[in-house]
Amino acid sequence: MKRGLIHIYTGDGKGKTTAALGQAIRALGHGFRVCLIYFHKNPEKFRSGELEILRGLGVDIYGFAECHPYFDKDVTFDQIRAGCLEGIAFVAKIFAENKYDLLILDEISISLRDGFLKEGEVMALLEKKPSKLELILTGRGAPKKLLEKADLITEMKKIKHPYDKGIKGRRGIEY
Amino acid sequence: MKRGLIHIYTGDGKGKTTAALGQAIRALGHGFRVCLIYFHKNPEKFRSGELEILRGLGVDIYGFAECHPYFDKDVTFDQIRAGCLEGIAFVAKIFAENKYDLLILDEISISLRDGFLKEGEVMALLEKKPSKLELILTGRGAPKKLLEKADLITEMKKIKHPYDKGIKGRRGIEY
Repeated sequence: MKRGLIHIYTGDGKGKTTAALGQAIRALGHGFRVCLIYFHKNPEKFRSGELEILRGLGVDIYGFAECHPYFDKDVTFDQIRAGCLEGIAFVAKIFAENKYDLLILDEISISLRDGFLKEGEVMALLEKKPSKLELILTGRGAPKKLLEKADLITEMKKIKHPYDKGIKGRRGIEY
Repeated sequence: MKRGLIHIYTGDGKGKTTAALGQAIRALGHGFRVCLIYFHKNPEKFRSGELEILRGLGVDIYGFAECHPYFDKDVTFDQIRAGCLEGIAFVAKIFAENKYDLLILDEISISLRDGFLKEGEVMALLEKKPSKLELILTGRGAPKKLLEKADLITEMKKIKHPYDKGIKGRRGIEY
């Protein structure tokens, strides 16, 4: 396998996490070992449709800092920061073990955008990425230094979204 | 199930087809019946990683007009147009049978952009969409009328792509 690239899916449109999930499926089809780590989402609680399917296909799934003040007013900044730091320590461990071919860090750009992680902390983590690992980072508001470091960036730009018409998140579509 | 929406994933960035595949996985996890139709790609020939995985999960997969002059200089415009017309006749049949919850028409915007299908032909097709069916159309250059008709549009905007550095399409990532 050639050098693994760093992908960033950012922007305010729908399709960032789902593009990462589609990459996971494509990679699995070629025998890649895949790991998916959610930030700011509790994979058990929100019961997203992809969870059981991906687990059934052998994807390892973890979650850190499983909430966000936007959705949960009772959680403190320090609690979320602690969860995010635990998450990046876990990723560093995964990097050292070098046991995956594709790793997805879902919504990690949100951790950066909202200050739960410092740019330097994530940049230092990326220095430890095993050369062959393909790494996907999703979430709005990816900071400039991260964009400079990435090999592939797509901005998912919202042109139209049903939320704007008051249509709520729908089962099988948004989760 | 509520009214199914029309999604468009367009733009020059990576993530249109993979976002559709991710939607398929999410939808499958909630028991949706899913169908994927490729335009301008031969699903058997290019052996994309997603094929076997999705088939194994029960997704029905078809391909029409399985080439494009950009990749195959020997094919004529009329041959591709005939394949695309066969494709939309097949979709009309699927609509009439109403047997899926999610249908993906991959790269159909390319058929429109390059004149293999006429805008009126696709717009007339969309009028026949079963109300509950969720429909995803991918491909660059989605025309204005199609955008007006859609409920959800994301423009996948290329900010950086390894192709620009001469890195070719990679197994498990681009196919």
